[in-house]
Amino acid sequence: MKDTEFIRGKIPMTKSEVRAVSLSKLNLRDDSILYDIGAGTGSVAVEAALSMRYGHVYAIEHKEEGCRLIQENLERFGLDKVTVVRGEAPDVLAGLPVPDRVFVGGSGGRMAEILDFVRKRNPQVQIVINVAALETLAAVGNYLKEKGISAEIVSIQVAKAQALGSYHLMQGQNPVYIVTIEGESRTESGKSLTEQGKIETMGSTKGKMYKKF
Amino acid sequence: MKDTEFIRGKIPMTKSEVRAVSLSKLNLRDDSILYDIGAGTGSVAVEAALSMRYGHVYAIEHKEEGCRLIQENLERFGLDKVTVVRGEAPDVLAGLPVPDRVFVGGSGGRMAEILDFVRKRNPQVQIVINVAALETLAAVGNYLKEKGISAEIVSIQVAKAQALGSYHLMQGQNPVYIVTIEGESRTESGKSLTEQGKIETMGSTKGKMYKKF
Amino acid sequence: MKDTEFIRGKIPMTKSEVRAVSLSKLNLRDDSILYDIGAGTGSVAVEAALSMRYGHVYAIEHKEEGCRLIQENLERFGLDKVTVVRGEAPDVLAGLPVPDRVFVGGSGGRMAEILDFVRKRNPQVQIVINVAALETLAAVGNYLKEKGISAEIVSIQVAKAQALGSYHLMQGQNPVYIVTIEGESRTESGKSLTEQGKIETMGSTKGKMYKKF
Amino acid sequence: MKDTEFIRGKIPMTKSEVRAVSLSKLNLRDDSILYDIGAGTGSVAVEAALSMRYGHVYAIEHKEEGCRLIQENLERFGLDKVTVVRGEAPDVLAGLPVPDRVFVGGSGGRMAEILDFVRKRNPQVQIVINVAALETLAAVGNYLKEKGISAEIVSIQVAKAQALGSYHLMQGQNPVYIVTIEGESRTESGKSLTEQGKIETMGSTKGKMYKKF
Repeated sequence: MKDTEFIRGKIPMTKSEVRAVSLSKLNLRDDSILYDIGAGTGSVAVEAALSMRYGHVYAIEHKEEGCRLIQENLERFGLDKVTVVRGEAPDVLAGLPVPDRVFVGGSGGRMAEILDFVRKRNPQVQIVINVAALETLAAVGNYLKEKGISAEIVSIQVAKAQALGSYHLMQGQNPVYIVTIEGESRTESGKSLTEQGKIETMGSTKGKMYKKF
Repeated sequence: MKDTEFIRGKIPMTKSEVRAVSLSKLNLRDDSILYDIGAGTGSVAVEAALSMRYGHVYAIEHKEEGCRLIQENLERFGLDKVTVVRGEAPDVLAGLPVPDRVFVGGSGGRMAEILDFVRKRNPQVQIVINVAALETLAAVGNYLKEKGISAEIVSIQVAKAQALGSYHLMQGQNPVYIVTIEGESRTESGKSLTEQGKIETMGSTKGKMYKKF
Repeated sequence: MKDTEFIRGKIPMTKSEVRAVSLSKLNLRDDSILYDIGAGTGSVAVEAALSMRYGHVYAIEHKEEGCRLIQENLERFGLDKVTVVRGEAPDVLAGLPVPDRVFVGGSGGRMAEILDFVRKRNPQVQIVINVAALETLAAVGNYLKEKGISAEIVSIQVAKAQALGSYHLMQGQNPVYIVTIEGESRTESGKSLTEQGKIETMGSTKGKMYKKF
Repeated sequence: MKDTEFIRGKIPMTKSEVRAVSLSKLNLRDDSILYDIGAGTGSVAVEAALSMRYGHVYAIEHKEEGCRLIQENLERFGLDKVTVVRGEAPDVLAGLPVPDRVFVGGSGGRMAEILDFVRKRNPQVQIVINVAALETLAAVGNYLKEKGISAEIVSIQVAKAQALGSYHLMQGQNPVYIVTIEGESRTESGKSLTEQGKIETMGSTKGKMYKKF
């Protein structure tokens, strides 16, 4: 989805290309329970909700302006699959349903607490983190090392052409690290082909199965 | 989807992150007719087919090894929504159904012919092009200039962490340009920004909703 | 040199890192005659002049504000090795001494004319071009193809950490293509690889040694 | 300087563009004493030595193959300004002259020790670090935070065109972080911005002028 489809305020928004890659890494199911932590404008929550048939998204945002923007975007897209939760993670996560997917767009400096909480709630949870700050990258790296978790880490640098007279200048966007902690892959070995095929209608789990045997 | 889910040969494959962004730019509907031109291993065709319920994908590939790989991947994912067409575009496109979406992963040096053909077949067609070579970038640029078409051009450079002992080194992948020619948007030129916003929103929401109901 | 060492106006300036790579590709000698075409603020002309003992730089700039900025920077660094030439290249190049090095920071849409002119003046000239616009990249590519010249083409994307509270966010700069047309190498075509290796080494060592003795 | 000018083994070499930027950040003077820590093939030591008239470079490398390669490169360029020191930093640094410039290309996991040692030897030392691993980036970040040092941190991602038939494909190189700890700037804290501007300018102009006269 284009960034222009969303109502935006002064709050930074996950850019279209980074959002597309992040959602792809989340590997959502049609019935996923997703926490969007540090939801900002809600662009990730909205695009995730639009791609699920039965699931639900909990958009966690501590800023009032952010929560208002998310609401406006939910109304714009006529979405009832997203619940806005105002407050800080992990404090406000306690009462929510167990997630199978977690996206962390902002951690408010509490990355380790957040990851500990959601991984305790569901050891199989699939977590995707967007990292813009070097300190956050270090925090995530330390966490993975401490816990002995292996994760996929990619950095993405996007530039976009801007027309200037009859020229197009490539304008650099800020590089973002996308960290993916694979919940599922650690436990699927026991499941049958059909089960897996069903669970993930898209059949990519089936692809994973083949990897296993 | 992960690159490891696909059967791969020596043929270059669109990498996971670039594929995710390209599919996002394609903005597929549940009933889209997609041409995947220069389909290579079929990774784009497969992931596109998995994300549509009623549509169909025509995977155009002139190399025999490529066609074989695509077939193997179709069987792996149990897909019947993809037809492999061996040959060169646009030569082999004549008999196919009119497309509403076209992805060009490889043009065999015939970019202008291909774009002319598919745009003539459907002036509203949404086209997404992956460009790896400077000559291809120039060819696309010249085409857009000649035809007076405005397109979105982004470049994406991905690096992926590789474990080396107790260290993770970021390994650079090749930068790719992703060019998007917005079929639909051309029809909205007469409308006000807000109208366009609405229509654009509805359009793509509908697109997404078709996927679901 | 740091960008902050220069007096800057509204005119775009070659950024420190891109300037360093460009000067390295220019491989200046202590007695080089350098044209800095599209000199802008004069940052390349100044840093080049500071690194040569006997050479001279002709800073070509058609904007009055640019010429004034260059003058101010020359005074700031107390440089007498740089002559500011106001006007458009190649028109204003006719009267100037034959160059052995040419940097093109801006071509005013006349890239082919400029390259033809300086290569005619000195077939051995070493040319380094900074490209920010896709149209310019195509123009340079077409020129190289037409003339059958092989050049080195690199793209550089820089991001710089910016402190935001207790965090450092990486801010993306615009990607730049740096094209290097090796004057000297063309004369070595007849020689064996080892000879070339020797000559290349000696050549540039000599170049560097000139600086020293 | 081009990478091809150096004799190379299996040891990783700082690439031309990253070397050019790193040397620019080092801001060498004609009489600098430079430690090149983790010298690898000696490409940084050689290019640094070629650019100084009176200074000296101590190339620290613990691998035997590396030390041999550095020697071969020193002979190739007929350099007597570089001393190869085999061993691990900071262990082997004790006996060496006080440095005013330090380049860290490899730290062997002892970054903090190395930085502590050289900064104790000379609080004004100018340090440039090349970082390829996420763990090293975290180590440098933690060090800067602990010591309350502000540094410049840039990341550079280079891609280079490779001819493939009649096409040129951009091949991505690995991204590198270049961290610069400004020795000198710390002494200017008391001065006004303009004074600092002047001094900085004079300082580095002088640095450059030393090279010349």
